[in-house]
Amino acid sequence: MKIGILGTGNVGRALAAGWTGAGHDVVLGSRRSDDTQLRAELAATLGEGVPVADPLSAVVGAEVVVNATPGTASVPLLAEIGAPALAGKVLLDVSVGFTEDGALSHPGESLGEEIQRTFPDTMVVKTLCTIDARLMGTPDSLEGPSTVFLSGDDGEAKRTVGGLLNDLGWPTESLLDLGGITTARGQEHYSLLFLGIAGAIGSYGFGIRVVAPSRG
Amino acid sequence: MKIGILGTGNVGRALAAGWTGAGHDVVLGSRRSDDTQLRAELAATLGEGVPVADPLSAVVGAEVVVNATPGTASVPLLAEIGAPALAGKVLLDVSVGFTEDGALSHPGESLGEEIQRTFPDTMVVKTLCTIDARLMGTPDSLEGPSTVFLSGDDGEAKRTVGGLLNDLGWPTESLLDLGGITTARGQEHYSLLFLGIAGAIGSYGFGIRVVAPSRG
Repeated sequence: MKIGILGTGNVGRALAAGWTGAGHDVVLGSRRSDDTQLRAELAATLGEGVPVADPLSAVVGAEVVVNATPGTASVPLLAEIGAPALAGKVLLDVSVGFTEDGALSHPGESLGEEIQRTFPDTMVVKTLCTIDARLMGTPDSLEGPSTVFLSGDDGEAKRTVGGLLNDLGWPTESLLDLGGITTARGQEHYSLLFLGIAGAIGSYGFGIRVVAPSRG
Repeated sequence: MKIGILGTGNVGRALAAGWTGAGHDVVLGSRRSDDTQLRAELAATLGEGVPVADPLSAVVGAEVVVNATPGTASVPLLAEIGAPALAGKVLLDVSVGFTEDGALSHPGESLGEEIQRTFPDTMVVKTLCTIDARLMGTPDSLEGPSTVFLSGDDGEAKRTVGGLLNDLGWPTESLLDLGGITTARGQEHYSLLFLGIAGAIGSYGFGIRVVAPSRG
């Protein structure tokens, strides 16, 4: 599958590595795609096989677009790319926006909903924002199964994203479809508990697992 | 221990049952303590052994006060009881406030912080707000261990609350101290993911477990 990843930070790099390893055709999109230092860094992390392009070019050829940009910069960047280039595509949204004092940039709703509202012809699926970049492609490194959540209005888009999560190593039984894109607010609001847990255990490298009632 | 529980809803009743069963001396506090229907309901649920008193009376004799009132009503009720009656006591705060349209009543901070700020001579500990009332006293009913969180500025108060959680059946290894009372916002913000998960699995009867990296 052709995947255009917007953002070249830890999340973009981890996802590029995971999906390239699974045989997908990944392009990273960045406003700084001509920056030689960035290119050298990416080549050192990912090898020479992952091309870097400007954001519009990364999107144009892609079947799935991934938003891995900082949450407060996401909508402006997507608007610059433009709704026509994004129309009809699946947009896998990983980002969460924070204000300068550490609060959510979208209290009472979510970035995922804002993106879906702004680009109604794009199928937005929120996922992977409840775990750290280093775990996104290595769920087996945890001491047991953990849960990853999906939110989106389009069932087919969620199936596509579910397949891409499988390709990163997340088994289908670890995926939990929360429902429509409004449920993205739950995933994003969890960020504050994520940060609290990370502070308490001294590591971002953890998951959470939904523990169901016993059947006995 | 003498425990005054403010609120006679599902949470107040579950905690009263759990701590009474563990041998503690529980009083339920309600503005409707003279309401014969409420008294009959409580007697049917809890037996005759748990007294019901007005909120101030429930607090005056207690070593630990529990806030199990609706989150948007908590501060007004506590203010009516008054800071002097609450001073020097541990206040175990379980509540989360929601607006009429289902958003958090304290976006960007938390009810726990507001209570601590309003009653600086009371030791507020936020806990148990990430699980449903029916599980608070029956963590063994889940298919495996799940995590319960504590937030508060006073270490001794958190130890007292930790002991009360043990008495409800939560083993010490399931308790995670997130830090100061500002970390209550993580617990409260999680409510939206809690509701999303409940909708997805069709039950409020679940926990979440922090899954750490494997040590191998």
